[in-house]
Order: sequence, then structure tokens, then C-alpha cells
Amino acid sequence: MIRIGIVGATGYTAYELIKLLLGHRDAQIVRLTSRSDHGTPIDKTHPALRNRLDVLLTDFEIDDFSQNVDCAFCCLPHAASSPVVKELADRGIRTIDFSADYRLNDLASFKRWYQAEHADEGRLGNVPYGIPELWRTQIRDSLVVANPGCFPTTSIMPLAPLLRAGLIRGDDIIVDSKTGVSGGGRTPKLAFHFPECNESISAYAVGTHRHSPEMEQITERFSGCGVSIHFVPHLVPMDRGILSTIYVNKMALNTSVNDAMASLSAFYRDEPFVRVSDVLPSTKDVSGTNFCDITVREVGSRWVIVSAIDNLIKGASGAAVQNMNVMFGLEETEGLL
Amino acid sequence: MIRIGIVGATGYTAYELIKLLLGHRDAQIVRLTSRSDHGTPIDKTHPALRNRLDVLLTDFEIDDFSQNVDCAFCCLPHAASSPVVKELADRGIRTIDFSADYRLNDLASFKRWYQAEHADEGRLGNVPYGIPELWRTQIRDSLVVANPGCFPTTSIMPLAPLLRAGLIRGDDIIVDSKTGVSGGGRTPKLAFHFPECNESISAYAVGTHRHSPEMEQITERFSGCGVSIHFVPHLVPMDRGILSTIYVNKMALNTSVNDAMASLSAFYRDEPFVRVSDVLPSTKDVSGTNFCDITVREVGSRWVIVSAIDNLIKGASGAAVQNMNVMFGLEETEGLL
Amino acid sequence: MIRIGIVGATGYTAYELIKLLLGHRDAQIVRLTSRSDHGTPIDKTHPALRNRLDVLLTDFEIDDFSQNVDCAFCCLPHAASSPVVKELADRGIRTIDFSADYRLNDLASFKRWYQAEHADEGRLGNVPYGIPELWRTQIRDSLVVANPGCFPTTSIMPLAPLLRAGLIRGDDIIVDSKTGVSGGGRTPKLAFHFPECNESISAYAVGTHRHSPEMEQITERFSGCGVSIHFVPHLVPMDRGILSTIYVNKMALNTSVNDAMASLSAFYRDEPFVRVSDVLPSTKDVSGTNFCDITVREVGSRWVIVSAIDNLIKGASGAAVQNMNVMFGLEETEGLL
Amino acid sequence: MIRIGIVGATGYTAYELIKLLLGHRDAQIVRLTSRSDHGTPIDKTHPALRNRLDVLLTDFEIDDFSQNVDCAFCCLPHAASSPVVKELADRGIRTIDFSADYRLNDLASFKRWYQAEHADEGRLGNVPYGIPELWRTQIRDSLVVANPGCFPTTSIMPLAPLLRAGLIRGDDIIVDSKTGVSGGGRTPKLAFHFPECNESISAYAVGTHRHSPEMEQITERFSGCGVSIHFVPHLVPMDRGILSTIYVNKMALNTSVNDAMASLSAFYRDEPFVRVSDVLPSTKDVSGTNFCDITVREVGSRWVIVSAIDNLIKGASGAAVQNMNVMFGLEETEGLL
Repeated sequence: MIRIGIVGATGYTAYELIKLLLGHRDAQIVRLTSRSDHGTPIDKTHPALRNRLDVLLTDFEIDDFSQNVDCAFCCLPHAASSPVVKELADRGIRTIDFSADYRLNDLASFKRWYQAEHADEGRLGNVPYGIPELWRTQIRDSLVVANPGCFPTTSIMPLAPLLRAGLIRGDDIIVDSKTGVSGGGRTPKLAFHFPECNESISAYAVGTHRHSPEMEQITERFSGCGVSIHFVPHLVPMDRGILSTIYVNKMALNTSVNDAMASLSAFYRDEPFVRVSDVLPSTKDVSGTNFCDITVREVGSRWVIVSAIDNLIKGASGAAVQNMNVMFGLEETEGLL
Repeated sequence: MIRIGIVGATGYTAYELIKLLLGHRDAQIVRLTSRSDHGTPIDKTHPALRNRLDVLLTDFEIDDFSQNVDCAFCCLPHAASSPVVKELADRGIRTIDFSADYRLNDLASFKRWYQAEHADEGRLGNVPYGIPELWRTQIRDSLVVANPGCFPTTSIMPLAPLLRAGLIRGDDIIVDSKTGVSGGGRTPKLAFHFPECNESISAYAVGTHRHSPEMEQITERFSGCGVSIHFVPHLVPMDRGILSTIYVNKMALNTSVNDAMASLSAFYRDEPFVRVSDVLPSTKDVSGTNFCDITVREVGSRWVIVSAIDNLIKGASGAAVQNMNVMFGLEETEGLL
Repeated sequence: MIRIGIVGATGYTAYELIKLLLGHRDAQIVRLTSRSDHGTPIDKTHPALRNRLDVLLTDFEIDDFSQNVDCAFCCLPHAASSPVVKELADRGIRTIDFSADYRLNDLASFKRWYQAEHADEGRLGNVPYGIPELWRTQIRDSLVVANPGCFPTTSIMPLAPLLRAGLIRGDDIIVDSKTGVSGGGRTPKLAFHFPECNESISAYAVGTHRHSPEMEQITERFSGCGVSIHFVPHLVPMDRGILSTIYVNKMALNTSVNDAMASLSAFYRDEPFVRVSDVLPSTKDVSGTNFCDITVREVGSRWVIVSAIDNLIKGASGAAVQNMNVMFGLEETEGLL
Repeated sequence: MIRIGIVGATGYTAYELIKLLLGHRDAQIVRLTSRSDHGTPIDKTHPALRNRLDVLLTDFEIDDFSQNVDCAFCCLPHAASSPVVKELADRGIRTIDFSADYRLNDLASFKRWYQAEHADEGRLGNVPYGIPELWRTQIRDSLVVANPGCFPTTSIMPLAPLLRAGLIRGDDIIVDSKTGVSGGGRTPKLAFHFPECNESISAYAVGTHRHSPEMEQITERFSGCGVSIHFVPHLVPMDRGILSTIYVNKMALNTSVNDAMASLSAFYRDEPFVRVSDVLPSTKDVSGTNFCDITVREVGSRWVIVSAIDNLIKGASGAAVQNMNVMFGLEETEGLL
């Protein structure tokens, strides 16, 4: 039984993680930490967990974790995460970090986009990006894994194989993403106040969203040259789910959309959580699951890729459990199907 | 042209009021006050008002209002409202108060339910309750009007005529109300955070909601004896609207639901904003309107009244405009149909 | 491994059932029938099942079921169900019926409320009502189980223990229920067309809903005398969930709401799927789970019970799996927690 | 007083049109036709119109219209519309057609995209496209006006001025649009069944939507050369509103997004219904209004235009009333502000 500790356990991703782990045969939640709510049972924060999990929220203490935790999930915000992850990793605790602190290639990128110091510069750039379908071996062997961003997951998963196969060009890729409101976190803000965002759709962070460099840096590892992504996220009045509509140029005039579909199908043939098919994805079809649904269509001279995930599962906590399963040599689908 | 000043102009009721007044031929908005946002144009707070209203938010000053405002709408919270209303009224400015400060019969009730001091004790109990269908003459002649509560509007409007006609009993009335989230105001709170209240319905303030005594005191004026109301409000994942399902006992065994319908129809025959009909009300049918829809059905030994309003219109700002129209001798439907 | 056949496999309850059974260790879906879609794979009807279940929709054939199915779930509409259930039961196949055909006490009641013939009169009245918390032994020993109605589940579960304990009166009980739209089934109708029911709440079937006699007949088994329930259901703009607000009169003046809570807590102490607590239930807290959450509050002279379930889980498919677990001697929570 | 007849009066666009005309000082609705519901009052179809409009639905008869109607709005589906519009126009009745029958340049395009015959070939290509901001004079002088498509309105309004000014290139324009469900009409279908489309977003008609040629043909009139638009619409779980995110290439490297904003601001300076500003548009800010909100941002090497309208107002019935106002020499904002 793997003993689990979750740092920063009161937000939505931690909550989803808890629910997934409750259905996992080999995991047992032993520590939940919260700076604000420590001392109260978790079901005070999340009444839906009554009768399901009887664990007290505590302050994070590295000695305590060192003795009692085999696998830590760190659900802290960026910049607040790396100091904790460093402590955990330095004590040899295998850690999956939900923040963006270890996702970018280098310190300069991190500082430019996050305008913060990094407490663990040595590891930055050496931590595998937590998409097992792309880096399974590295994840298996690593002490720390950088759980991927929700939007990047929807774009990297279809783009990586197509770039590697040389079927599409890396320049002028447009990623138009639509997300449910849980992506904004659990802290009340006017933008996420029900009567403000219900019955409305809007774009936000146009040209400034921090997932842009993440998408570009990660996909560049597959393209062999520069990738330029124009990314615009939108807020949709629903709880969960991300749909990304991705407009790409094909590399060669004589290829067809069937080539793209065949390439993706082959690449993900044995993957339990990727469904490449002719069906146009919808967020409802992946809601509550760890699936990433993908299709490709032809629109004029471009190919249009549509991909969908549940932002809280494959876009966060499901991916984290999948990473844990890989790291600990378990059945990769355990707790997820 | 009636010169309008709105005190506390950044919330949802003030916003609806502004939109209604923009379509009113005889009203001109000249002052909008806000303690927090003063100095900025109103369309900074509500971008939807761009190109529609070019007024700066200012601090409330009684001298300024005294010289420039004919009719004031006070949209402050309870207890914060009466000091301002007193100032306005003492200067002779006709004022419609959105708060509960003048709705209850007496100081003791106010203190018990609102646990606050009252700055204008002399007027409390002498201000007409702002349902023109029930107190048109008093409203016309009054300096101050107490705009009614949203839930009470849905129950008082059907109950008052039936109690007066002696068709129903005043004891053991059950009012089960369902409201959209805008009823909770514009300040972000966890309860109104989209991923918390979307896809969910729940009861709140069970047995403790301050609209209970308001319903009882106002309907007692029609029953001639005590009225006992069991009131439970519920939060529904929609922007606006209130539906109330009201379970009453008929007074005499030999009356039928047709008698109740006939009584209500007769009472409201000439009222432009009350629709008594066999159609089961829905909040969508009254959304964006000043209508109150009412029907009565038989369920076992009881009659069930169903009523619906738009909480922001007939439940707040529409009623306020209707009151203004009555107070200033205008066509009562101006700006509302 | 229990071999499962689902008759009428394309609606929402069958879909939820399939998803639950996919996570059940001892069940294997071997037959899915559909009159309209037979010959196509189930994931054509429900694309979300791609890669999860590879079964063809077929016509129902009793010989085929007789040889290949251990446990049948019949998800047909009322009156269409009893002929099939009779065939299955006559061949000795243990069957859980989702329709109302076996829920009422007697043929006269069935005919009055459903205005249809009954194909299996002999069994009607002799089939246990499928709430294991109330009839576990009978369910375990029965060939056929009548899966309970969604609304009745929310009222019977709190009312039964309180009636049996003599804490509340059986007359003049008011059940005001609110349901998500999936309760209306998967056939497109104007009432469930998104722009009609979104952003709206309304009452329906006021005084005529067929779950009224079901609630009364079942609770009367606990009261020892007549129970009179005034039931009004409402349609809420959300996918799933039922919240019922139940207004009861206590039997004795000197009892308090704590007595009611204590009685319910004791009655359900060892039940894994009933959570009696001070927390006001919300449908979100039970969404996707087999829980029934219950609380009791005092409002004036009455007690108000609030209960919540997921209409598709504890109100339909979760209850069905729970019944199957009881019937086949499995861990009762298997596939459900 | 302009006497109004609406052909095909039971759908959502006709319903919005009726509500707008009820607030119009110079219009009186005298005829409402419906093939399916004729003989019943309009408030049978739309209960929200009780007490507001007392008109019977009738069959369409050209002689009757000829004598009693000054302005006809034809809300029939494509191909069904042109025969009626022809009859109306041949009798000299000024007609605003909501269908696509007169929007395309030529018969060949119409036949290719709509695969239907056209009953009025002579007029096709000679009817002004009903965006008054772009063709005010032509609309004023025309017997028939082609009310624009909802999606095209959101793209043509920002693209036309920028193409004319030579600021952007006409090739490789990407229009990613998001629409509320009312855009799908009032006929119940599985795709618009609440539990199917609620809590979900999906793309549809990818590469095949009939608004693509409409966008291209209309914008080409401004570009002076070919325009190539990649258009993908998405269905969003909300009642109304369209947001379009439009990715364009600028023509010259030394222009900035400020040039685009300045150009749009100048072009629409005196227009009451177009708001060009730095604020990112949301559908909520234009909901229930005739506004088209537009902004432009820089994202990498591209400019991203975001535009928003209410699909039922500026995208249909509001535009129609605006067109009527222009055609009849009325104040253009009458009934719309």
C-alpha cells in the first residue's frame, strides 16, 4: 500500500485527487496539509467526503512526511511549490508537482513568465514532463514529475506525434481553448462569481497566458525546430472540461487528413487513455474520465484538430495518478478506469 | 424629467435599475454613488453600460442630492440604509429604499431579526410597503417607500387577496421558494462561486431567513389574525428568477380551487403586472419582466399556489420603478413594458 | 463473474448502469438490447463508451438471455416492462426492474395511476421494494426486485424510520422535490429543450405525479396507518440530482428536532450509503455517488427534512447495483464506492 | 404606425422579434402566421406573451398581407423562404428575410451550399445584405433585405473595415465561433436536449457550415480580392450569445494593433450599436442588446479580434428591426435602446 500525502489539500485538484485515490487499490491517503484550514477534518472543507475519508488537515512538516509518506502530491501554486518539492525530493520522497515550477526548460523562461524566484534551480530542466504517453520511461525513473498544465495537455498530445512525423508545420499554430470554470480554482473571485460567468463566454489572458511557453517548449522537443503557437483561452459556463480547437498547416500538399488520423492512431494505438476517432470530441464525453479524445478534420487549406479532456482529471489529478502508477510500477489504469 | 440619484450603485439591483431607467421616458440618471468605486465611470464597473450611460461614480453627499435629485433609490444593505434614507427624507427628497430597514412593523421586530440599530425609528412602521397593487394610494402620497423583499413579493401577492377573502387559513402556510443566484448579490463568496453552486440545488437559512417575519407581518394585515409561515429558500443554478410553491389550507371544505382562482383573477383584473392563469408559472416566462405570474392547483386536501417573478425586476428594481411611477403620477407601466 | 443483460440499454439510467458495472469486479456485461438501435455497437449511441465497452445492441430474446445472463436489468418504460420481467422471472433469471410495474401494492392502484394493463398480475404486490436499507432480507431472497422511484427514494428513506418510531404524523406531509433534467429521460421534448428549461425553474405534474401513490403506499408500511403526502416536483436547470424538502408535523409537542436526528442516525448507523448529519444537503455533494444525505431542521411548529440523492445513482442505477449486490451475496458497496 | 406581419412566427427569432416590436413606438403587429399552430393565440405557443400580445396565429395568405401589412418579416427556413418573399415583394410589400435565401452572390453558390432550388432567382444577388452599418443606403432604398447570418455578423463587422483599409490579409483568416443553444432553433433534437449539451462544449459542422461562404463572399466585397476563411462553430451551454475569436495576419509588418483599433474606432465612430474598445467582449455584456462589441489584441505575429453579439438580437431580430427602421426612415435605434 502506497502511503499518500497531499500538500495543499483543499482546492479542486486536490479534491479530485482524493476522490480518485479513494478508488485506488494500492493507495492510502495518510496526510493532507493546509495552511489555512489545518486542524479541521477534510470533510469540513468538502462535505461530500463525509463517511468517505476521515483525515485531519495538518500543517506540512517534512520530518513527518519523511517518515510516513511514500508518494507526495504537491498542489501548491507556482513559486510556492518548488521550496516544498525540493524538501520532499531531497529526502527522497517521490513527488508529483501540480504547479508549473518544473515544467519549463530553464530558469530564464520561468523567471520571464512567472516573475518569481525558483527555490530548486538545480532540478528545473531535469524533471520529466508528466505525460506518460510521451515520457513513460523517464517518469518511471524519476524522483520528481512535473504534472502537465491542463491546456498544454490538450495541445501537446495531438501535436507531438504530428510534429515528430513531419506531417505538420511548427509555425503559425493556433490553439483556441475553452475551459470550464473549475480551471480557475476554488478561491471566490468576481470573474468566477456565478451571475458573472454563467450564461456568458469570454476570452481571457489573450496573448499573455503562461501556458503558451509551456506548449511551445514541450512541442519543440518533437518538431526539431521552433514551434510558434498563438494561444487564446476562453471561459465557458460549465464546471469542468477543456476543448481545444487547433488550426495547423500541413507540411506537404499531397497529404490528407487521413494521414494525420492514421499517424495519431498508430502513435496512440496501445494507450488506454487516448481515443483517436472520427467522432467530434465533446467535453461531456470525457467528463469524469482520464481520456483525451482527439480528431482531425480538413477545413479549407488547414487541418483542424479538436481535442477534449476533463481539466480536473487528465488535465490534473488523473494525470497525477497515472504518473504515480507509472512511478511505482503499478497497472497504469489503476484507479482511473 | 425626473432627476434620479442612486445610492450604492454598483450591485445587481442598481444595475438592473439603471437599465430600466435608461428606457424610461421621464427619468434621467444624474447621480450614482459608491463608497468603494467613486471617481470611476459606471461602465468601468459594468462594461455592458458602455455607450449607454456616461456618469461618474461619486461619494454620496446630501447637499448635492438635495439640489440635483428629485427621486433617490437607496440600494444599501440593511442598517446602512436608514441613516441615508433619513437624510434624504428630512430634506424632502422622495426616496425608495431597497433595504429591509422600513419593511417591518416595529423597532422590536427589526432589532430581533436584524440585530442592528435603526437610525430612523420615527419613520419605521409609517412607511408604505412598496407593492402598488396593494397600497397604491399610500405609496402615491408617501415621501419614503419600502421596496419589498423578493421572496415576500412572491408570497404576499397571492396570499393577501385569498386571506382577505377568507378563502384560506393563516396558520400552517408553507412557502418553499427557489431563487437564482443573483439574489445573493455581487460580492464573491464561496457559496456563489460557479463550480460550487452550478449543477447543484440546496436549501439555505432554513428557519432563520429574515424574509419570514416580513411575510408574516405583511400578510397579517389582510388576514385579520395571526399568520404562520414556514419558509424555506433554495438556491438554484440560474442567474435570476424566483419560483415559490405555497401550500395552504382552505378555510371551508365546500370551496374549490376555482374559487381561489376566481378571487385572485378578480382582485388583479386591472393590474398590468399580475397574470393569474391556469398556466403553471416558470421563471423563464417572467425573466426580464415586471410580471408576477400566479396559479392555484389542488393537491390532496391542500391548495398549492405557484408564483414566479424575476427577482431583480418585480422582486427589486422593477417594483422600484413602478413605485416611482406611482409616486410621481406617471403612467404606472412606463419603462416597464 | 455475474453475467449481466440490460434490456432497453440506450437511455440515461442504462448508461449510468453500464458505467457503474464497468467498475464492478464481479459483473460482466454480456447483453445490451434495444428495439430501435439493435445491430449497432453501444458506443454509437454513447460515444463516451468508446474503448470501454465493446458490445453490440441486440433484440431481446428470452432464450438467449436464459442461456447467457445471470442477472437482468430491465430499463423499459412502465407497462412495457412487466411482460419482459415475467418472461425473465419465469425462466428463473434474477431481475431488477427499473419501471414502476411492481412498485405499487395492488393491481387496482396500478391501473388507476398508470392506466394500463399489467402482464404479470400474480407477482404484483409480492415483489420487494428495492431499498436495501429497508428490505435487505426480502431483496436477498427474491427473484425479482422493484427498483424504487427516484422521488420516492428521497422521501421514503427519511420518513420510514420517523414514522415507525412514532415521531411524526402521517397526515399532511408535504414533499417539495426538485430534480435535474436527466430525470425526464433521453427522448428530446420541448420541455427538456435546452433554451426552454435552462435558466428556468417550474413545477410540473402538480397533484398528478405517479410517484405520489408510491410514496404513500410504501411509507404506510411503516406508519401503521394512512399516510397523506402532498407532492410537487420541480424541474431544475442541472443535469442530475434530486433535493426534497419535506415538511412534517411532529407527533408529540415535547419532542425536539434532536430526537428526529437521533432516531435517523441510529436507524442508519451501519448503512454505508446514508449520511445523516447537520450539514444541509446539496445535490452536488451526492452527485455521482450512491449516497442519500439527510438532515432535519425546525421551522416554526414543523420539522423540515431535507434529503438529496443523485437521481441516476441512488435514484436508479446505483440502487440497482446495490440490489444486485444484495441478491448475489456480494459486498454491498462493490462498484459503488 | 407600420403594420407588421411575421411569417413563421413560432420560433425563437420570431419570438424575440415580437418582444422587440412590442417596445417599438411606430410598429404594430397585425399578422402572425404559422403552418403548424394556426388557429391558436400566440400566447399558447409562448406563454410569456400573455397580457402582452393578443394575436391569433393564422395561415399565410398573400392577399390578406397585401391589404393589411406594410412590413413583413419572413422567419421561414432556407428554401422555404424565397417563394414567400417573392410573393410579398411582387406585391410591393417591404420584406426582411431571416433566411439565407438572398444572402449569397449567385445561384450557383446557393445551390452548391443549400442543395435546393431557388424560387426567386431574379432577385438573388440584388438584395442588400442587412448590416446597416455597411449598406445603409442600399437597405433604405430596397424592397427586400437579406437579414444577415448570426455568425457572419460577428466576423464581417470587424473584418470589413480592416480589409478595406488594407490593414489585414484576406487569406488564412480563422474564425473560431462559440454560440448559445438558441442558435439551433426551437425544434427539440438530441443535440440540444438539456442533459446532452449542458455541461459540455463541442465543435460542429467543422468545415461544412453554410455560413462559411457567406462570410467569404461578403468580406470579399471589402478586400478587393479573395478572402479565405477557416470557420469552426462551437456549441456552448448557454441560452444566447455568440463570441467569435478571429485570427488574422496583418498586411504590413510595421503596423501595430493600435492601428487596427484606430481604424475600427474611426469606421464605427457614429454607430450606436458598435462598441470598439479595449475591453475583452463577453456575450453577457451584449445579452439582450443590439450591440456588437469588438476588440483587437496582439498574439505573437497575429492579431486576434474578439467580437460578441446576442445571436437573437444583433444576430437576428434586432438587426431586422434596425433594418426596418432604416427602410421606413425611422430613428435607427427605435425599439432597440
